Amino acid sequence: MTRVGIVGASGYTGEELARIIVRHPEVELTVATSRQFAGRKLGEVFPNLRDLVDITLENAGPDEIIDRADLIFTAVPHQTAMDIVPKFLDAGRKVVDLSADFRISDAAVYEKWYQAHSAPDYLSRAVYGLPELYREKIKKTSLVANPGCYPTSIILGAAPLLKAGLIDAATIVADSKSGASGAGRGALVGSLFCEVSDGFRAYKVGEHRHTPEIEQELSLLSDRQVIISFTPHLLPIARGILSTVYASLREGVDAAQVASVYEEFYRDERFVRLWPAGTYPATQYVRGSNFCDIGFKVDPRTGRIVILSAIDNLIKGAAGQAIQNMNLVCGFDEDEGLGTVPLFP
Amino acid sequence: MTRVGIVGASGYTGEELARIIVRHPEVELTVATSRQFAGRKLGEVFPNLRDLVDITLENAGPDEIIDRADLIFTAVPHQTAMDIVPKFLDAGRKVVDLSADFRISDAAVYEKWYQAHSAPDYLSRAVYGLPELYREKIKKTSLVANPGCYPTSIILGAAPLLKAGLIDAATIVADSKSGASGAGRGALVGSLFCEVSDGFRAYKVGEHRHTPEIEQELSLLSDRQVIISFTPHLLPIARGILSTVYASLREGVDAAQVASVYEEFYRDERFVRLWPAGTYPATQYVRGSNFCDIGFKVDPRTGRIVILSAIDNLIKGAAGQAIQNMNLVCGFDEDEGLGTVPLFP
Amino acid sequence: MTRVGIVGASGYTGEELARIIVRHPEVELTVATSRQFAGRKLGEVFPNLRDLVDITLENAGPDEIIDRADLIFTAVPHQTAMDIVPKFLDAGRKVVDLSADFRISDAAVYEKWYQAHSAPDYLSRAVYGLPELYREKIKKTSLVANPGCYPTSIILGAAPLLKAGLIDAATIVADSKSGASGAGRGALVGSLFCEVSDGFRAYKVGEHRHTPEIEQELSLLSDRQVIISFTPHLLPIARGILSTVYASLREGVDAAQVASVYEEFYRDERFVRLWPAGTYPATQYVRGSNFCDIGFKVDPRTGRIVILSAIDNLIKGAAGQAIQNMNLVCGFDEDEGLGTVPLFP
Amino acid sequence: MTRVGIVGASGYTGEELARIIVRHPEVELTVATSRQFAGRKLGEVFPNLRDLVDITLENAGPDEIIDRADLIFTAVPHQTAMDIVPKFLDAGRKVVDLSADFRISDAAVYEKWYQAHSAPDYLSRAVYGLPELYREKIKKTSLVANPGCYPTSIILGAAPLLKAGLIDAATIVADSKSGASGAGRGALVGSLFCEVSDGFRAYKVGEHRHTPEIEQELSLLSDRQVIISFTPHLLPIARGILSTVYASLREGVDAAQVASVYEEFYRDERFVRLWPAGTYPATQYVRGSNFCDIGFKVDPRTGRIVILSAIDNLIKGAAGQAIQNMNLVCGFDEDEGLGTVPLFP
Repeated sequence: MTRVGIVGASGYTGEELARIIVRHPEVELTVATSRQFAGRKLGEVFPNLRDLVDITLENAGPDEIIDRADLIFTAVPHQTAMDIVPKFLDAGRKVVDLSADFRISDAAVYEKWYQAHSAPDYLSRAVYGLPELYREKIKKTSLVANPGCYPTSIILGAAPLLKAGLIDAATIVADSKSGASGAGRGALVGSLFCEVSDGFRAYKVGEHRHTPEIEQELSLLSDRQVIISFTPHLLPIARGILSTVYASLREGVDAAQVASVYEEFYRDERFVRLWPAGTYPATQYVRGSNFCDIGFKVDPRTGRIVILSAIDNLIKGAAGQAIQNMNLVCGFDEDEGLGTVPLFP
Repeated sequence: MTRVGIVGASGYTGEELARIIVRHPEVELTVATSRQFAGRKLGEVFPNLRDLVDITLENAGPDEIIDRADLIFTAVPHQTAMDIVPKFLDAGRKVVDLSADFRISDAAVYEKWYQAHSAPDYLSRAVYGLPELYREKIKKTSLVANPGCYPTSIILGAAPLLKAGLIDAATIVADSKSGASGAGRGALVGSLFCEVSDGFRAYKVGEHRHTPEIEQELSLLSDRQVIISFTPHLLPIARGILSTVYASLREGVDAAQVASVYEEFYRDERFVRLWPAGTYPATQYVRGSNFCDIGFKVDPRTGRIVILSAIDNLIKGAAGQAIQNMNLVCGFDEDEGLGTVPLFP
Repeated sequence: MTRVGIVGASGYTGEELARIIVRHPEVELTVATSRQFAGRKLGEVFPNLRDLVDITLENAGPDEIIDRADLIFTAVPHQTAMDIVPKFLDAGRKVVDLSADFRISDAAVYEKWYQAHSAPDYLSRAVYGLPELYREKIKKTSLVANPGCYPTSIILGAAPLLKAGLIDAATIVADSKSGASGAGRGALVGSLFCEVSDGFRAYKVGEHRHTPEIEQELSLLSDRQVIISFTPHLLPIARGILSTVYASLREGVDAAQVASVYEEFYRDERFVRLWPAGTYPATQYVRGSNFCDIGFKVDPRTGRIVILSAIDNLIKGAAGQAIQNMNLVCGFDEDEGLGTVPLFP
Repeated sequence: MTRVGIVGASGYTGEELARIIVRHPEVELTVATSRQFAGRKLGEVFPNLRDLVDITLENAGPDEIIDRADLIFTAVPHQTAMDIVPKFLDAGRKVVDLSADFRISDAAVYEKWYQAHSAPDYLSRAVYGLPELYREKIKKTSLVANPGCYPTSIILGAAPLLKAGLIDAATIVADSKSGASGAGRGALVGSLFCEVSDGFRAYKVGEHRHTPEIEQELSLLSDRQVIISFTPHLLPIARGILSTVYASLREGVDAAQVASVYEEFYRDERFVRLWPAGTYPATQYVRGSNFCDIGFKVDPRTGRIVILSAIDNLIKGAAGQAIQNMNLVCGFDEDEGLGTVPLFP
């Protein structure tokens, strides 16, 4: 059994990692940290795990974690991650980092959107953890930069078309809608039930920190510098992201051609499901699973394509993808622990 | 007291009309029709109205309605409206039609998106009922074509910029999200709580029938033929629409210029609220009111503007706007009956 | 115009008071306090009030408030209220206190459930602010102890039967369910959207502080010491309380007798709506209104009656009832400002 | 592989059965029937199953089903089940019936609450499918009457105390709250999102058909005729039931004694989780799992106990329990296919 640790286990992503790990046949959760809840059982902090996950949260330092885990998930805020990840790597541990700290390969870009990077030398060692794009590289790395939730939905939705050159990258508009778990378990007025339920709003319009990450990957796919409009919105649901992505199609491209490009690109992917013409994915059909569901509409009136891409933000958008990456890094079956059929209704 | 009738009072829009009318000092509800619920009290069919609205639904024909009402709201499906509205007009009644039948001034366009029009001669008598654009015309007409819910939010959001020529109309993308009441009270599997709650999906992508109505008005505002991308989505809330509208700004246009155009355009409008820079409207802040709240973000990175426009789809997007139109047609104060402060949380 | 002040205007109850006051023809909001948001406009803190309520929150002390308001709503936590209310009264101001501090007439009982009372001498000056029970006393008092939300629903539901001696007070079980706004706008993990939505739980079973208040009033009504089982639950809705109250009927009491007792008791009450046999109230039918809707089922199998009582917890359960009390204290029409028809859906 | 069939696979219970079966290592879904959706893939009717469950719904008759399945789940309305179940049994098939038709052992009681029974001779062959009470009998039967959702939560909550004689059965009040999936996927106005969301109501007060089933089992447990008050309510959530059960404790019984009775009774049960003193179960902590979570409060003030019992109504309250019963009937591990950790948030 591979020993795994979770740094930052008292957030929703940490909980979700634990929830998956407890049913994963190849790994064992040996350490789970939390400053706020140190000394309490994870099954008390998250009562859904009661009697199922027998681990006590602790305020363990890096050395202790290194002693007790072979692979470490860092589910902490950006800036915190870049302080500890190098220690884990230097000690020979494998890391799947769920923060943003190692996703942006260009430290200057990172600094522009976040703050100065304290471990820029480690950036080149990180592989962006989108298995559908970087599977072979992930298998060989010891540091996976697990993608953001919005980027996962948008990049997987747009990748085949950009790669095939079917759309004009300069025209991309990504209008994304996320469930409230994306904001985490922090006690903020803006996350209260009464502020979120029965309502809908946009936030950080044109300024969300996932933007450079999306642009980096779309640029690599299209081999040119891509700048996009990205607007996140807050849905009154707990889990799920639906991204609606607009782009102008190259002259003469039709729906059949688009469909065949998608099918080719995702032929062997077990976590991407393509929706037939005229049907569209929805967050409720991926709930609780590691799927990314993709559909599209070619609109001859406008010459644009509209891509719909749905994930469970806590799974394919965070913990599930992290497990998928762990599976690759550790040589397990890629879907080990990720077999949940979406829960509906 | 002006006597008013509601044709089709057993839907959510009909109910909302009755809810407003009962507190309106200038009018009296004298007839309310429903085939399905004929013989039942409106306050039984909508128990929120219990003891407050004393009217029995009936299966009344046009002649009866003409006898008993001076102004008639037709809250029926398209195609049904165009069969009865001419009768009301011919009998000298005033009509606020909440269907789509008289919104599209070009019968050929109507036919393309709906079906053949049975009363094309009456189209020219209809005024598109957006008071912020057509107040003076509405005051003089006897047939108001009450706008659709999506169009209200999108047109009010984009109008000032199109009128001022600040955006490129060819680049407009309207990504709209609506609460479930927009689908009406019909018993459809797709509208069930279990299908809608805790989920989010797009529908009729690039094909929604509100498209020609939006394009007609945006074309008139910009004095050129406008074709837009319009994607409706279904939110797990009962009331509210938020439209996120994207367009490329004309070279050199900045946020201050945009703000001043909006302020100028809506200076005297009591039902449009502009949000200051950096803040964005939300459906929960207009709930239960006739407001359209508008905010925007100028994004220098992409050269685009993102407009956020929020309404309560049953009020400013339907019944409230219909009352506003009635007030204009009848010479009442424009905000009579519409003073509700938004209900939050 | 009577000048009114709100102490503690940044909570949901304070906001709701302001929302009602702004449409009330007899009063004017002259001072609204908040420590946390001092210096900010109320319409920024609650954007639904944008452009409608023009007041800036301030950290005003009692003397300032006394100078500027004739009647003061204290919408602060218990313990805070009893420190300031005496000052307002001593200065000749009228007070509607929305805390628990003056609801319990027996200081020893208060101390048992809360803590020691610092102003026990003022207890006898307070009138319990349930107009349906104490209208005449309220009209003459300068201190109204506005009832708790749960107590309002339960007492109004049970009062007629206790008064008429139709039920056995020793058998009362009150199973209540409240929307999340009852927990206030404090940033607590337990109030987050992700913790409340799509879920349901009981809390403070048998220990909720509204218990002594309910028991006090039920005891007065039945002229004996009443002890009840009271279980509050948290609903995934923002507004609304439904209380399901069980009690054994006196031998031989039938549904017709019960119905006539209710009708008699509430004959002239404009804010109580009785539901006919076989139908039951629901929170969604009182949303946004000051109504208490009551229905019941006599169950001959068990000899028990089941009473269903629904209110909007922020209105009849808090701010609306406070306005109703203000109307009585100030000699305004009792329903002034409270005419909102319930908002459904 | 055991071949299993689902009669009535287009409802939420049928879907849930398929969802579990597809991950169950011992069985194979060979036939799934639906009149309404015959000819369509199950993965189209329930898009969460897309690409995962490869079966086409068909309007198969009993003979066809008998040919192709060894064990049959009948997920059809009552009255329909009693017409087909005898045929399956006569042909030597095993049946887990999810309808009410074989739950009530006394045909006269069944007739009083439902209608006349057309197969009374088969009643004695049915075992009530609550494994925690009837495990050994279930293992030996060919007809399991799968319990109703409300009864499962109430009976499991009350059983240990009745069996141990700690409560007075004559005082039981069961106040239950269920998610909307309990009403099925039928297109009814009362089940629409706009009717259910942001609201709460009771229904069939004192008249719900699950009453005789609950009373039958509580009577058997307490060895006397038990009559209870049972009030179902509709929660604005998709999944989950929380039952709050009240009863008078026998003189002198304290919390420690109650706790030890529960622990003893459920010591070896893998699907019952007991909550420690002062904490209470919630529907969100059992979501997606086969658990029944139970907590309680002994209230010395009233001499009553309050029991809180939470299940996922579609799993432990329907499909999960049916699979658990199938596992017993077929000699598989009892928890095969039922290992899902509850999904939260």
